[in-house]
Amino acid sequence: MASAIFEIDARDGKARAGVLRLAHGEVRTPAFVPLASNASVRGLAAAEVAVLGFEMVLGNTFHLFIEPGHAYVAEMGGLHDFMGWRRPIITDSGGFQVFSMGHGSVAEEIKRRRGAGKSRILSIEEEGVAFRSYADGSERFMGPETSMQVQSSLGSDIALAFDECTPFHADRDYTRRSMERTNRWLDRCTAWHAEHGPHGQVVFAIVQGGVYEDLRAKSSAYAAQAPVDGVAIGGSLGQEKEQMREVVEWSLRGLPHERPRHLLGIGDVDDILHAVAAGVDLFDCATPTRLARHGTALVPDPERRWRLDLKKAPRARGSREPIAERCPCPACREHTRGYLHYLARRSELSAARLITLHNLTFMAALMRGLREAIARGTLDAYRTRVMEGKAP
Amino acid sequence: MASAIFEIDARDGKARAGVLRLAHGEVRTPAFVPLASNASVRGLAAAEVAVLGFEMVLGNTFHLFIEPGHAYVAEMGGLHDFMGWRRPIITDSGGFQVFSMGHGSVAEEIKRRRGAGKSRILSIEEEGVAFRSYADGSERFMGPETSMQVQSSLGSDIALAFDECTPFHADRDYTRRSMERTNRWLDRCTAWHAEHGPHGQVVFAIVQGGVYEDLRAKSSAYAAQAPVDGVAIGGSLGQEKEQMREVVEWSLRGLPHERPRHLLGIGDVDDILHAVAAGVDLFDCATPTRLARHGTALVPDPERRWRLDLKKAPRARGSREPIAERCPCPACREHTRGYLHYLARRSELSAARLITLHNLTFMAALMRGLREAIARGTLDAYRTRVMEGKAP
Repeated sequence: MASAIFEIDARDGKARAGVLRLAHGEVRTPAFVPLASNASVRGLAAAEVAVLGFEMVLGNTFHLFIEPGHAYVAEMGGLHDFMGWRRPIITDSGGFQVFSMGHGSVAEEIKRRRGAGKSRILSIEEEGVAFRSYADGSERFMGPETSMQVQSSLGSDIALAFDECTPFHADRDYTRRSMERTNRWLDRCTAWHAEHGPHGQVVFAIVQGGVYEDLRAKSSAYAAQAPVDGVAIGGSLGQEKEQMREVVEWSLRGLPHERPRHLLGIGDVDDILHAVAAGVDLFDCATPTRLARHGTALVPDPERRWRLDLKKAPRARGSREPIAERCPCPACREHTRGYLHYLARRSELSAARLITLHNLTFMAALMRGLREAIARGTLDAYRTRVMEGKAP
Repeated sequence: MASAIFEIDARDGKARAGVLRLAHGEVRTPAFVPLASNASVRGLAAAEVAVLGFEMVLGNTFHLFIEPGHAYVAEMGGLHDFMGWRRPIITDSGGFQVFSMGHGSVAEEIKRRRGAGKSRILSIEEEGVAFRSYADGSERFMGPETSMQVQSSLGSDIALAFDECTPFHADRDYTRRSMERTNRWLDRCTAWHAEHGPHGQVVFAIVQGGVYEDLRAKSSAYAAQAPVDGVAIGGSLGQEKEQMREVVEWSLRGLPHERPRHLLGIGDVDDILHAVAAGVDLFDCATPTRLARHGTALVPDPERRWRLDLKKAPRARGSREPIAERCPCPACREHTRGYLHYLARRSELSAARLITLHNLTFMAALMRGLREAIARGTLDAYRTRVMEGKAP
């Protein structure tokens, strides 16, 4: 069955390069989707994100539900108008944030900024999840219908079905029962969406099943038969990169080839290279932008996990070199490591912004390189070059 | 005696419009000089500041002396290269920050970010000031030669002579003795600079004398006879706007007309209108950019002191209007008050940046309006229009 929204233009092994056609425009894949969790890619204007070469951003259903509330965003014309971003938006399901409260792995950003210690899950039931809001301590509820309702009000191009994001430490039995409930929630999401979903919004299912091969297979099979336009791979992918790659492969195995696949929350360079080769089309991850805000730049240096900590002295203090030679970003064109070192150590706004511009330029180049390599049938050579420390 | 660096093109009453010709380019006056205290206009790229229409920024001698140190900046090619700003830079003398430690009015920004409670003056003597650094608690010293040495290493276009910034609560006798010492320090500054000052850097004297007419007159007279290329008006200007305006007029009275005059630390719209009419050419002030970082936009609203607090609900929450109609800044072109309200309440980086762009756009328009009005001989009408709430 051909996809209504996805066209694959080229294949190289299991990898694919294609184009997603969404209500607010096209997204060439493989693509990295920067986070605009709270309706902005932190420190950048929406227009700048587009100029960097990104065609879609990710809005955070849970955060926008809590603040300013989806009704407010709807009243302001929907998330696109609200944040001044005219291209496609994918919204997550809210499941990751809702469940991270209860499972003890609260998303770092919340923890740091909001004292999420005060947020907690009150109950997880078939109907959904009751929790206490980090904003005002009030009791709130989110279930599959709430999640779809919120994403409908936000008006995203892609809505993700509500899922329980089971943590790594959950045992097989809990993971199985949770995955089965996520499947039932998927049905409720697609049912709600069929009746109430806004025109042009499509739904992606989420594959769960933890680190268990048979559960991932079952979850993928369930997603494969669902009336959705794409599939995201979520949940615990294991603690080691080896295991994560295995889990991604298990999850992909049962999925229909013609539908787009989104790997949630993964953004390390080597992981993206591997996942693209395995057949993943879309990625989102806080890492490139969060690292930037903390003074770390992405550089072609596999031995240091592609990271250059500009706050640390050895390769930054006193250096009149740019972060990366030949990088076209404003940080590299206009400034030295020695200057960014000083700004980053002072936590200056300008440091966060400049390094964010750099890191997203790096990610955009990586994804462009992957798309071109797939089109040319040279993906293996491209992966090898990047893994050897060539600029993407 | 004609000025070597300043040409007055038009006069309207006591107001003047002209051009400063400095080592790194021209500055049309009257001009507002944005603060780049720590080698960046917070959140903006240097190129953006130029695009907004500003031709000079102010670097902070005291902060750069403490961190990263003037030797470091010199090693990085001087302040222009360091921060990627190719146009003129004025550096303050360091006096304001040094003395605010001891006089109990520590600059707000330091207090908030650095716990400057730990910084304190150890002694004020003829030679200079010993103090404990807020950065590492070490004992540091700054006197007239140090200040000039630091500004020489920074390589600014305009260096300010080292002065004691006497506070409002200082009595007449202290203010007089302090002003006389500042005069002696001025001689030491010009002597040091004549021998060691970098090519192309000019020196401005600073008028002190608190709120005492005769002391201001004496200080102006001393500055007037000094071998300097311009004069800045500093120190306590009083607690009320009325008194401030009087002090500015006393300070200006004895100054040679042909030299440029800089009013330090003043940036409210009505104060600028008044001071320009009184004959001031240059302004710097933290307010437009600091307000922006705290969510307050500048708008043509004299009754509210030209301030719109976007964090507060009434005129922002739910509003689909821009901050100001017809404002060409990115915040107004792309975004609503309702969006900025949400970002500002969350203290998002993007809020600080967007509102900074707006506020500096506002200041640039005000100064352009003043220059044009002086050139046309319509300054009174322009002041009246702005005071009635017309957009600058």
